[in-house]
Amino acid sequence: MAGSTIETLPSPAAEYIRDIDRALEAYLDDRNDYPGQLLEAMRYSLMAGGKRLRPLLVLLSAKVCGSDPRAAMPAACAIEMIHTYSLIHDDLPAMDDDDMRRGKPSCHAAFGESTAILAGDALLTLAFEVMAKDIQPPATAAACCVALASAAGAANMVGGQVDDLAQESAGADADRSLEMLESIHRRKTGAMLTTSLQLGGLVAGASQQKIEQLDNYGRNLGLAFQIVDDLLDCQGDESQLGKRTQKDSERGKLTFPSLMGVEASRERAAGLITRATDAARSLGEGAEPLVALAEFVLNRNR
Amino acid sequence: MAGSTIETLPSPAAEYIRDIDRALEAYLDDRNDYPGQLLEAMRYSLMAGGKRLRPLLVLLSAKVCGSDPRAAMPAACAIEMIHTYSLIHDDLPAMDDDDMRRGKPSCHAAFGESTAILAGDALLTLAFEVMAKDIQPPATAAACCVALASAAGAANMVGGQVDDLAQESAGADADRSLEMLESIHRRKTGAMLTTSLQLGGLVAGASQQKIEQLDNYGRNLGLAFQIVDDLLDCQGDESQLGKRTQKDSERGKLTFPSLMGVEASRERAAGLITRATDAARSLGEGAEPLVALAEFVLNRNR
Repeated sequence: MAGSTIETLPSPAAEYIRDIDRALEAYLDDRNDYPGQLLEAMRYSLMAGGKRLRPLLVLLSAKVCGSDPRAAMPAACAIEMIHTYSLIHDDLPAMDDDDMRRGKPSCHAAFGESTAILAGDALLTLAFEVMAKDIQPPATAAACCVALASAAGAANMVGGQVDDLAQESAGADADRSLEMLESIHRRKTGAMLTTSLQLGGLVAGASQQKIEQLDNYGRNLGLAFQIVDDLLDCQGDESQLGKRTQKDSERGKLTFPSLMGVEASRERAAGLITRATDAARSLGEGAEPLVALAEFVLNRNR
Repeated sequence: MAGSTIETLPSPAAEYIRDIDRALEAYLDDRNDYPGQLLEAMRYSLMAGGKRLRPLLVLLSAKVCGSDPRAAMPAACAIEMIHTYSLIHDDLPAMDDDDMRRGKPSCHAAFGESTAILAGDALLTLAFEVMAKDIQPPATAAACCVALASAAGAANMVGGQVDDLAQESAGADADRSLEMLESIHRRKTGAMLTTSLQLGGLVAGASQQKIEQLDNYGRNLGLAFQIVDDLLDCQGDESQLGKRTQKDSERGKLTFPSLMGVEASRERAAGLITRATDAARSLGEGAEPLVALAEFVLNRNR
């Protein structure tokens, strides 16, 4: 499966991704009440060809828990909006200072820094509006808002980014342990992936046992995803990735390959994916798309 | 009432403000799961001595609609978190570039730009977590999330800030009409004030008629508030305001005094406050605190 892209995933993933793109577009259609420049920046980043991994996990999780995946679409869109805002803010000059993202100028490079900050703020806010308004019943909407806010907030995604930046600026004083690296990734990217699965389960009214199996799948998938990300940064093809590679090592950033070597990182990722696919299979019938997605995460080249 | 501060408001406003401060503190207590530096920046800005006007409106509105105001406290805290995040981001070098706020260094001046951006993001996210988790029943929590997200998002607060910055950078090409000025303020500050009142009404399960009266009060109060803000910037006392004055005119910013003169601005604010107090009185018994608050807004000196 080397060289696979997410579009080559077996049914229903590819169809779901098209549905997600359409639903995201629709949330920004006819928003004459948004300033034009702001709307353009929000759309530019939201429709910039992301992998849609998180919203896909929401829909696949809802489906495997017995729900019509369309019922989970607002939650899928919400988590992609939050993911997009986090990329816009992470790319800012005061943060990772990246001028390229997905093969195009990053949001602040295209629209200026103030518009990029505000487009991020607006997408973060819109995520909660969409979920609180469009997930039914309202009690499920409230539960989804709590889960998403917890994953995106200071205890997880934002907190992980703070510690990631702090590690970088600490230089020789940095805590270069595997524990710190895993703690950063569990919060910075892992929590959003496990929460994607949880949101699907919440919409489907899944049992606590199913939610725990999904969480087990998500934790293993999330860490493998990050290890592969680090491997792609040190070995990937810039033109396929659509962003500069070798950034991590230039910055002396803590990564899995720098800490445990390329070969051991690969093995670790493969082991985690085996655990993820085992957890997916324990969910019973209908879990094949989650298994295929885990294999994609291991073999992706962008 | 010239020279009044919000602490001199008649009961129960002063007690409510103390309760709000305590509740905000409690939401940041014992958050060992937040990175220390991030938590410090969040607390620094959230507890920096703001007027607590928005959360006070939430509680007074809940009370006048017949609810125990404590039931609305999570919504009150949420709107103050959103207000605080907006100040942190507005002060950034790429935005209004203000190094002072409420008599202290602004968040980015004290903690650095990346921590300030992330502290703002974390407060915005925490607002929805707090409201979705702690407002009861969950259907009311979801309705409050929708209302707050709409007021804080691209159609209102964020959109107003975008157009405000665009006006400033447009220079001689700017649309210097009263309509544009009012449109910016209705979105940038007005919507958050009317939504404060709406949140109190939602928690209290108020009738549509009461919510409309509150909205009428809030719209007039909000515009008056902004006119007074402009007057304070051009005539206020820097040491009392805790921030630099004359900033607006240095920047050639569109303001009410610059557009219609100081005297007419004063008269306009007074007329709006009369309409606000009339609307408050139409709410019947228990509306005196809203009347007193409107008079405070007209006569405040910071």
